Amino acid sequence: RIDLDRLMGRIKALGKIGALDGGGVCRLALSDADKAGRDLVSGWMREAGLDVTVDAIGNVVGVRKGETDGPMVLVGSHIDTVATGGLYDGNLGVLAGLEVIDVLNDLGLTTHHPVGVAFFTNEEGARFAPDMMGSGVHQGSLSLDTCLATAGIDGATVGEELRRIGYAGETPVGSLTPRAYFELHVEQGPVLEEAGIAIGAVTGVQGISWTEYTITGVSNHAGTTPMRLRHDAGYVAAEIAVEARRIAREFGGDQVATCGAIELDPGLVNVIARSARITVDLRNTDDLLLREAEARMAERVGELEKSEGVTIAVRSLARFAPVAFDEAFVSLVAETAQKLGHSAMRMPSGAGHDAQMFAPNCPTAMVFVPSAGGISHNVEEYTAPDEIAAGANVLLQMVLSAAGR
Amino acid sequence: RIDLDRLMGRIKALGKIGALDGGGVCRLALSDADKAGRDLVSGWMREAGLDVTVDAIGNVVGVRKGETDGPMVLVGSHIDTVATGGLYDGNLGVLAGLEVIDVLNDLGLTTHHPVGVAFFTNEEGARFAPDMMGSGVHQGSLSLDTCLATAGIDGATVGEELRRIGYAGETPVGSLTPRAYFELHVEQGPVLEEAGIAIGAVTGVQGISWTEYTITGVSNHAGTTPMRLRHDAGYVAAEIAVEARRIAREFGGDQVATCGAIELDPGLVNVIARSARITVDLRNTDDLLLREAEARMAERVGELEKSEGVTIAVRSLARFAPVAFDEAFVSLVAETAQKLGHSAMRMPSGAGHDAQMFAPNCPTAMVFVPSAGGISHNVEEYTAPDEIAAGANVLLQMVLSAAGR
Ligand SMILES: NC(=O)NCCC(=O)O
Ligand SMILES: NC(=O)NCCC(=O)O
Repeated sequence: RIDLDRLMGRIKALGKIGALDGGGVCRLALSDADKAGRDLVSGWMREAGLDVTVDAIGNVVGVRKGETDGPMVLVGSHIDTVATGGLYDGNLGVLAGLEVIDVLNDLGLTTHHPVGVAFFTNEEGARFAPDMMGSGVHQGSLSLDTCLATAGIDGATVGEELRRIGYAGETPVGSLTPRAYFELHVEQGPVLEEAGIAIGAVTGVQGISWTEYTITGVSNHAGTTPMRLRHDAGYVAAEIAVEARRIAREFGGDQVATCGAIELDPGLVNVIARSARITVDLRNTDDLLLREAEARMAERVGELEKSEGVTIAVRSLARFAPVAFDEAFVSLVAETAQKLGHSAMRMPSGAGHDAQMFAPNCPTAMVFVPSAGGISHNVEEYTAPDEIAAGANVLLQMVLSAAGR
Repeated sequence: RIDLDRLMGRIKALGKIGALDGGGVCRLALSDADKAGRDLVSGWMREAGLDVTVDAIGNVVGVRKGETDGPMVLVGSHIDTVATGGLYDGNLGVLAGLEVIDVLNDLGLTTHHPVGVAFFTNEEGARFAPDMMGSGVHQGSLSLDTCLATAGIDGATVGEELRRIGYAGETPVGSLTPRAYFELHVEQGPVLEEAGIAIGAVTGVQGISWTEYTITGVSNHAGTTPMRLRHDAGYVAAEIAVEARRIAREFGGDQVATCGAIELDPGLVNVIARSARITVDLRNTDDLLLREAEARMAERVGELEKSEGVTIAVRSLARFAPVAFDEAFVSLVAETAQKLGHSAMRMPSGAGHDAQMFAPNCPTAMVFVPSAGGISHNVEEYTAPDEIAAGANVLLQMVLSAAGR
């Protein structure tokens, strides 16, 4: 059984780094706060006796030796957050992994296979797109060079920022294919809470499509320019956001659509915007439907370009097809939960996770615990300690069964 | 006749202050660049022998003595610009006024009434709302104390910024009611150019309604939050912008609607925005229609508040009813233009102007010259020198006839 006080103590300590007034944290990937969080957690890894390495994209992996030298069982997640994030998203999975290590240490137990715990760079994608960047590079589905050259919302690149905070590591990426990958995470949605279920056995992750549209119009005077002569970049951005909602409504099912960023230039009350930037996040568990949604949006963008007389540059920020987790592992999560006395249900993940980058290459499983009010990417994000204990104990059993004693 | 080279030289010299790479200027009201522009123009006023005073809202007035001491004939406009403005908007009117003074000096002519030239604080309203702030306070339709306490888009207040740049003057506001007010301005719209006419005799200014909506929703995860559970401040802002366009389309006529500023917080690709700010600029020459447009928008905002489960704070940033200029003066502008050999037409103004604050209190007239492509509030704003000469000569004749020789 895991030591809940030790785990909660670490969650709180890490939550102090980048803490926002009034609660929550801001530890955007590769920021000073992220560096401080990385230093704290890798310190804990070393204290736990792990062999800690940093790879070229800044992923940090700590390994505990097993009886054999073969591929390890890896527990991972991330410690970066969005700008207005909570204490649990990502952090829980990493610190629960460390807790599993501590339990093995407490028991003096040497597993058959090595056991590792990792935190991956820039899972959130909030500063640098795409999300799941570190795990994507780690597992070879994203290019290291492209990612290092990627500029973030503030203009700095991943490579520059890795060097600046001292996390451009020596270990080559892709040198590690675990024998199994596990990730405990808060659900970040309302499903478990509404169903009154303790543990989610995650069947897979829905497809994720992020697109950035940069609209170039003509700035002009708000009072003197007849409507027929406008090329209003701000209006086009607004129409894109409304179309995104329309798509979600018409597609129904689990289709979601979000425009989280809209920026107008010059952004003044009496100036028709000369340019605008908007991001569209479309997701669906069904890749065919997701493609239809993307096509609908592309069509509407084309119409707007013509009708408003603007030009629209399209940039894909992230595109991940839906991912299915290992069926045997999904069942094992549910059974393990029930054996430990917790209710469990199968469910897809609405959020992207590092686990999805491992799923094509090794048996992978995720364990979800409830999020109060379905709230995440919000400073109010909350999961109760007993729910965390339940999830961490399921994780512990999964690791033990895969690593062998 | 005015000296076009002298006038163009000054327009260019002033245009160097706050010049943007690639053309145009940024001299937002009470910024460092505005201070430098003010210093330059008031220096020119003193060189021309004017008695220069600065009032409590930072308006600068330079007066040339007449044969009598009574109320002066005042020529005015503004030298502040939007963030991406041109060289002519406002500046032309002030520098043409100075040119009129120089012509009187060159001729050694003492007019019967004093002649003044003024630039008014924050006509644009781009940094601090409302627009026409200095002239509004000058003519008693805006409160000095309220305006001094008004915070701008960067948080600083008008009063603080006036003191910082040394333009919180000693002269009490409202101490000056001119016997007549004249303003030469670029049209900023396409009407004169499309009609092939040199001079606009401005009949009045349309009504202006600026409203800021601050939407408070709930930030949440873009992937995990079902559409039915969203309180998306960004989506609501987009719907408001689309409704503004719909109102303009349905009302037709000269109704215009613009959302120049939209800001989302935290503004990240995978975070449903927790709050948003949007400005709506509605204008119509008919105040009844403008009120209907305002009511339509208020109704839609109320619907969105309910349907999306957000709260929307409403703040009026500016509200000016349509203004009519002195009928005799309007005719005189057209006749004067024709006497000088220029084509002229009567037309309303789409933009707000300092002149409209004088119109209720003294006979007031405005002279428009064409704007190439109808472009303004854009770095490409342009009016040809011969068009400027035509307008400035009409202004000169208007001043001579009102000031008496
Ligand atoms: N878990 C999580 O919040 N991941 C961020 C990537 C996403 O937007 O789904
Ligand atoms: N002339 C001018 O651009 N005035 C600014 C105020 C407005 O938005 O109309």
